[in-house]
Amino acid sequence: MTTGKLFILSAPSGAGKTTLLKRVMADLPGLAFSVSHTTRLPRAGEVDGVDYHFITRDQFEAMREHGTFLEWAEVHGNLYGTSRPAVLAQLATGVDVILDIDVQGAAILRKSATIPAASLFISPPSLRELERRLRGRGTDSEETILLRLKNAKIEMEAALDYEYLIVNDRLEQAIDTLRAVVIAERSRGHRLPTGQAIEILGEL
Amino acid sequence: MTTGKLFILSAPSGAGKTTLLKRVMADLPGLAFSVSHTTRLPRAGEVDGVDYHFITRDQFEAMREHGTFLEWAEVHGNLYGTSRPAVLAQLATGVDVILDIDVQGAAILRKSATIPAASLFISPPSLRELERRLRGRGTDSEETILLRLKNAKIEMEAALDYEYLIVNDRLEQAIDTLRAVVIAERSRGHRLPTGQAIEILGEL
Repeated sequence: MTTGKLFILSAPSGAGKTTLLKRVMADLPGLAFSVSHTTRLPRAGEVDGVDYHFITRDQFEAMREHGTFLEWAEVHGNLYGTSRPAVLAQLATGVDVILDIDVQGAAILRKSATIPAASLFISPPSLRELERRLRGRGTDSEETILLRLKNAKIEMEAALDYEYLIVNDRLEQAIDTLRAVVIAERSRGHRLPTGQAIEILGEL
Repeated sequence: MTTGKLFILSAPSGAGKTTLLKRVMADLPGLAFSVSHTTRLPRAGEVDGVDYHFITRDQFEAMREHGTFLEWAEVHGNLYGTSRPAVLAQLATGVDVILDIDVQGAAILRKSATIPAASLFISPPSLRELERRLRGRGTDSEETILLRLKNAKIEMEAALDYEYLIVNDRLEQAIDTLRAVVIAERSRGHRLPTGQAIEILGEL
């Protein structure tokens, strides 16, 4: 029985992360999202327990005090956290788990290193293009757009701290690269399913 | 100007390495073989300067004494070596270079670590299947087949020393995995083309 691999993934809002992940997860079986807890309100179409676990600030703080979160962070005035028991349970089933978290959470997780993980940063081709995408989305107020751009600048300074940097310039190429990173990580020698390693090496 | 990445690749004879490499190199531009020097005689169809630089044992030993080889090894009674100047010149053009070498050479190269490299081992699904493939090839004598099988056992014990282990069970899947490893390695953050990193980070 092998456990899954943890993928830490960060990207500024508007970098195309959601589209990339949906496409790659549709193509590769055995890859699942970790569902985060958050205190922010659901956007149109978001489903509780699927996109996020939507909870109150009081509930979040209680969980945090119990040490339930692998990492947590405050972003745009809302709290986001990843439940350690949920991630470990997912990994134990052999599924690879994607943690979609901000750069603060990723830095904490890399430092604590309680679970081996591969880290990926998805970047827009430029800040100008990011601004164009955020305005084109039409879901955010001017104030929110400016806040997202300001945060994007800060986040992109952390890009080189990640093992993999995927520049989402041409969508199909970025999808192919993200898919390649997952497949490559799965073929790392020390991660071979135990049964397979025995089959190969056991005959010697 | 970025330099290419070095890929160290090993596999027992009959694991399907040549087929895999040809398919992946046809699909991915910017990937080139390092052409080794060898004292063994050309097989039918092999071209000097393309498949190998075929040289005499005297010539090989002179080059070895001059420190020309990045690594060298004796396999099946023949000498094989990789010319350091040739590899460095290839990498300097920005091309990723594949070093197709045996496990002894790979171990030496990993230890010396003069050039950063990703290491890959291609394994047959089993030794029984390897024997079937070697006999099916019809190019080797019984003595050679038995020698190759004996060496394969030794080589496969080194498989877990490599960063990536690709089991060539289903050909198309193995091709996809080898391709993925190359693409993933190219997307490693610290390997981004300098121009691209400047374009993204220079705007901040």
